[in-house]
Amino acid sequence: MGRMFIQESINYDVHVHIMDSNDEAPAASCANSFTLGDINSYEDVIEFGRNMDLLTVEIENVNVKALYELERQGVTVYPQPRVLEIIKDKGLQKQFYAENNIPTSSFQLLDANADVDNLQEHLPFVQKLRTGGYDGRGVIIMKSEKGLEERFLEPSIIEDLVDYEKEISVIVSRNEKGDTAVFPTVECEFNDVNLVEFLFSPAEVSTEVEKEANKLAVRVINTLEMVGVLAVELFITKDGQLLVNEVAPRPHNSGHHTIECNDTSQFEQHLRSIMGWELGSTKMTHFGAMINLLGAENHQGPAHYLGLEDVLSNSGTQVHLYGKSETKPHRKMGHVTVFGDSLNEVREKAAKIKSQIKVISAVGNNES
Amino acid sequence: MGRMFIQESINYDVHVHIMDSNDEAPAASCANSFTLGDINSYEDVIEFGRNMDLLTVEIENVNVKALYELERQGVTVYPQPRVLEIIKDKGLQKQFYAENNIPTSSFQLLDANADVDNLQEHLPFVQKLRTGGYDGRGVIIMKSEKGLEERFLEPSIIEDLVDYEKEISVIVSRNEKGDTAVFPTVECEFNDVNLVEFLFSPAEVSTEVEKEANKLAVRVINTLEMVGVLAVELFITKDGQLLVNEVAPRPHNSGHHTIECNDTSQFEQHLRSIMGWELGSTKMTHFGAMINLLGAENHQGPAHYLGLEDVLSNSGTQVHLYGKSETKPHRKMGHVTVFGDSLNEVREKAAKIKSQIKVISAVGNNES
Repeated sequence: MGRMFIQESINYDVHVHIMDSNDEAPAASCANSFTLGDINSYEDVIEFGRNMDLLTVEIENVNVKALYELERQGVTVYPQPRVLEIIKDKGLQKQFYAENNIPTSSFQLLDANADVDNLQEHLPFVQKLRTGGYDGRGVIIMKSEKGLEERFLEPSIIEDLVDYEKEISVIVSRNEKGDTAVFPTVECEFNDVNLVEFLFSPAEVSTEVEKEANKLAVRVINTLEMVGVLAVELFITKDGQLLVNEVAPRPHNSGHHTIECNDTSQFEQHLRSIMGWELGSTKMTHFGAMINLLGAENHQGPAHYLGLEDVLSNSGTQVHLYGKSETKPHRKMGHVTVFGDSLNEVREKAAKIKSQIKVISAVGNNES
Repeated sequence: MGRMFIQESINYDVHVHIMDSNDEAPAASCANSFTLGDINSYEDVIEFGRNMDLLTVEIENVNVKALYELERQGVTVYPQPRVLEIIKDKGLQKQFYAENNIPTSSFQLLDANADVDNLQEHLPFVQKLRTGGYDGRGVIIMKSEKGLEERFLEPSIIEDLVDYEKEISVIVSRNEKGDTAVFPTVECEFNDVNLVEFLFSPAEVSTEVEKEANKLAVRVINTLEMVGVLAVELFITKDGQLLVNEVAPRPHNSGHHTIECNDTSQFEQHLRSIMGWELGSTKMTHFGAMINLLGAENHQGPAHYLGLEDVLSNSGTQVHLYGKSETKPHRKMGHVTVFGDSLNEVREKAAKIKSQIKVISAVGNNES
């Protein structure tokens, strides 16, 4: 995220200073300046942020107490610590929806080491860690009593399993004046470990669903009074209802195609919103597909992009490697965007590209 | 150039190490690493290049002797020193066209302090410094005997003044396998100091002229056996002939719109060609216009982009600031690309944007 944000910030000559606990982080090498530090450490965040004009995050899992303190000291923090606090805790996030009549699946909060016996009646359900889950981690789907023994023991939520038709995502942004702008909805296809494998833009939904999804996304960001880019993941249930699954207060995997397929990219939009500039046009300029480049099963070690040359010979295709030196199974190593004149065209090309490229370990063959 | 090349190289996780004699150069802040050094110094270029896998240039005005030596030592240098040597000297460049039957205007080489008396019969003509000219500098148009006293005294060429209909440009690229790819021709509109003010893509020319221009550009790069991106500037004479004006062995101002308006940008194409990858599709995806942001007359000092907010509210518009801290009259400070569905649309928007933005000095009003 930081990396692509930097690529676009260069267009506006904005100095981007990055902090990460890994000095080989994807954003480290292309930032204007870099500080080694832990975003979960109160001291590191304070020390880093005290001299900044403006702070933002590429992940919500950050020390929010430190951000509150920096805000108190007069540093502008967008998205606001208040918003990050709600979103980073899936329990608070769900309560926020409930309190504001934002449609979402039914849920229940569980304390650490909650009693299993009470849970049986809720089966089947999804259990999610309240904090720290990411990219499919921290989520278990429970279908039978047997699963109950493998549940998380930390504070969590359980949610009704939604019988959905489609999973769509809406990227919305808001600046401090309260202007909002919504990108067209996109459709996500997940793989078996709950990671987005393909994304298609626009989503194949009715005009009413499109409008409803846009309105709902605007309602969420306005209710949060958030400044920045918010990704709103929605279920379309089999009876046509929209339910908010969860939100991310930042540019998101489901908005990467906007770099090639929309007037303004989600990264530039994030920059515009936090800088207090006019929000950019979100008009779609191409049909798009995005293929996540995930580390192959059984491969761990220095990354090698098998078949990259083949991908390069496709027209209407843009490769984005994130510069992570090591691959591991399911790790997001990059993505490829396909753009074209119809959904059929980009669907076909996306399938082809998916078959052409594989992220493996460069050192020997790790297949077991 | 370096800056936009870096923005696109990030997509492929290519480590870009920049040398410039100014540590506030536009590319310095976003490079993976930076060395302070003079590209015209033999020692600096050798010292910088000896440990590189691959060297390229963003301007042809570089110490070519040092590049020859590095090539001898086994460093890959693209474009080749041999090509840079020809192109950086406008005399050798013209001789190259003459020797290879590449159509160009008639010319004559002048030694330093050449006798004025012989020149009168050639009037009117253009005098160009053989080396070191850039962005309209080093070029004088002589229309009468009076001008002859203001001529350059250094080695130069004089060329017949071409009575042209249009000035167009073709960006062509070639990799080491000898594959070539040509972008659609573009049309350039110059201001009164011979700098590109507007550019429109595609050029409004007949299919035959388009084909002829493409063929000519491919012929030039093949004859040079050059690896990299070559910008070929052409005159279309009033009787429909194509003449090569001059070439630049690198991404060029007349190809900036390719970032938004073509499948592959000229910067990615340059990367692909010098890395020995498959060349990318050059297909046009949008009609485009580019507006150079030139420093306003009478303004010198810290740069301020008056009207930038207004430009940001246009749809189909991408701003590129180069991050130069100081402006001066006619200095290229950035550009704005407009993309849309017709030439009329982008022409109108380009005129509007031109009237909205002005690069001035931030410190007071320097208007005299």
